[in-house]
Amino acid sequence: VSASAIPSPPTIVFADRLDAQVRRRESQIVLGLDPDPTALWPGTDTERRGSVAERAAASVLVHCRALIDAAGPACVAVKPQLARFEALGTPGWGALEEVVAHAHQADLLVIADAKRGDIDVSARAYARALIGAIDTPWGSLCGLAADMVTVNPLMGADALEPFIATAREAGAGILALVRTSNPGAADIQELELAGGGRVWERLAALVNRLGRDGVGESGLSDVGAVVGATAPEHLARARELMPRAVFLLPGVGAQGGRVEHLAPAFAPGPAGGLIAASRSIACAHSTTGQKPAEAARAEAERLRELALRVSQGI
Amino acid sequence: VSASAIPSPPTIVFADRLDAQVRRRESQIVLGLDPDPTALWPGTDTERRGSVAERAAASVLVHCRALIDAAGPACVAVKPQLARFEALGTPGWGALEEVVAHAHQADLLVIADAKRGDIDVSARAYARALIGAIDTPWGSLCGLAADMVTVNPLMGADALEPFIATAREAGAGILALVRTSNPGAADIQELELAGGGRVWERLAALVNRLGRDGVGESGLSDVGAVVGATAPEHLARARELMPRAVFLLPGVGAQGGRVEHLAPAFAPGPAGGLIAASRSIACAHSTTGQKPAEAARAEAERLRELALRVSQGI
Repeated sequence: VSASAIPSPPTIVFADRLDAQVRRRESQIVLGLDPDPTALWPGTDTERRGSVAERAAASVLVHCRALIDAAGPACVAVKPQLARFEALGTPGWGALEEVVAHAHQADLLVIADAKRGDIDVSARAYARALIGAIDTPWGSLCGLAADMVTVNPLMGADALEPFIATAREAGAGILALVRTSNPGAADIQELELAGGGRVWERLAALVNRLGRDGVGESGLSDVGAVVGATAPEHLARARELMPRAVFLLPGVGAQGGRVEHLAPAFAPGPAGGLIAASRSIACAHSTTGQKPAEAARAEAERLRELALRVSQGI
Repeated sequence: VSASAIPSPPTIVFADRLDAQVRRRESQIVLGLDPDPTALWPGTDTERRGSVAERAAASVLVHCRALIDAAGPACVAVKPQLARFEALGTPGWGALEEVVAHAHQADLLVIADAKRGDIDVSARAYARALIGAIDTPWGSLCGLAADMVTVNPLMGADALEPFIATAREAGAGILALVRTSNPGAADIQELELAGGGRVWERLAALVNRLGRDGVGESGLSDVGAVVGATAPEHLARARELMPRAVFLLPGVGAQGGRVEHLAPAFAPGPAGGLIAASRSIACAHSTTGQKPAEAARAEAERLRELALRVSQGI
């Protein structure tokens, strides 16, 4: 394998690819994949051989495939939570690679929920691991090949730039944490600054600045932001500070966020907001009494229709 | 494998185990393992079969083992940078597991340089992946079994608490980013707050508060901090704000930090500061002309003696 095996840079910026995908699939729903080995769907324990890690990873893979097959048609992307796969060691990483391939075969984008952040050389290695490819003496090595990756901006611009450079080479995008959905988000992100504004607003300004060179014809940028759906009072301000960023909106459902409150996310267009839902889809059967796949499909479709209406201002 | 396979909680707090290890080995040096497949030591390409990822991972493993064998005797711990292993996919994670095992066999502690941070359930999964064990229907599954893990505190206390809880169950420790060694660290960490102080000082206060219940007889806590050696002007203040925290001090060597400037880290005792060195050890031969292993051993020993003198106030 020679260097010529590395694909040439994409001719379409990522945000336009995302915009087209959202319009074509008429969905802003991101299916969160957070598989808990103790709460997999029935019928997933199909692997009778191997170590604990191998059996758990095999079952997690069957579970994720079934969830994608059931709820995927109502979604635009899946979002595997890397923690859940890392917890299963080497076989877990293998399952993650197969989950990504399965989602891509189902015409879904993949958001690697990794929340990585590190100094330049390490950030570059993470970026290549998750959305790019690395050179080795034995040839080029494609990584996880996700379409977007979540990143942590605490270490500043130079920790994000390698992700952005890699994303632009690969035709992918990044989503930086700006205002997260957890209660503790306030501890640091809400601190008031001497110069005015709060820490999260400074993170938003950083996202906006770094995204300027990645804006496509859709008006959206390849540098997006994670803005929790649990703090909708911040959404309008976040949109003001980041007019071109794609917002990934976690926290709907189990964490208490409501789709009806997310309208400001869609100001730049239908792909301005991506609504992540995980437990509310995967565990829908626990409240409806339906079979897991039926309940997941119905809940994803309900969220899809609701989000579409909110994004259209209906 | 039943639940009884889970070890009972340790009777010694992690910080005391670390303190004993530093005193016994007379070393505060942490050997950073950041293997770049294009810059491995000669003689590491021993694997003639398999995919690009498998051959790269096999060579990375041979390189890391050789580096540990050469420089490990002068060190107290190794610090694998997870990005470098993730970049090699599933075989990379396998190599990481073997590197951890090799370091433990060499009587070295392992600091998983992961910089993870996420909401509660995901933080718990990461913690179990890296320093703990998870329950599955097929039995308990031990993760990477590192002794410490680096974590990112941007998401607040509730994103750190699952790491701390898991660390205390497992007899491990955590190291939260407080003031990192990269130039961009200033972008967010140095922002001045309306209530006085800077963002990094608030992170330091959080580390200090969360570490109160994990202080051992050594006077050190199981909640430590990453404080870059490239900004030594902050060290005295960091020590004031976190009197019981173990400091991981990256940035010596390639990034420009100097051991001579790190004295405040050692105020609570010899294990108060752990000095991470990666490229300066692994690439020492590029300036000395020695064989890689000889040069690495000599540079690690030089740093060990220097750090010991600084920690003793000599």
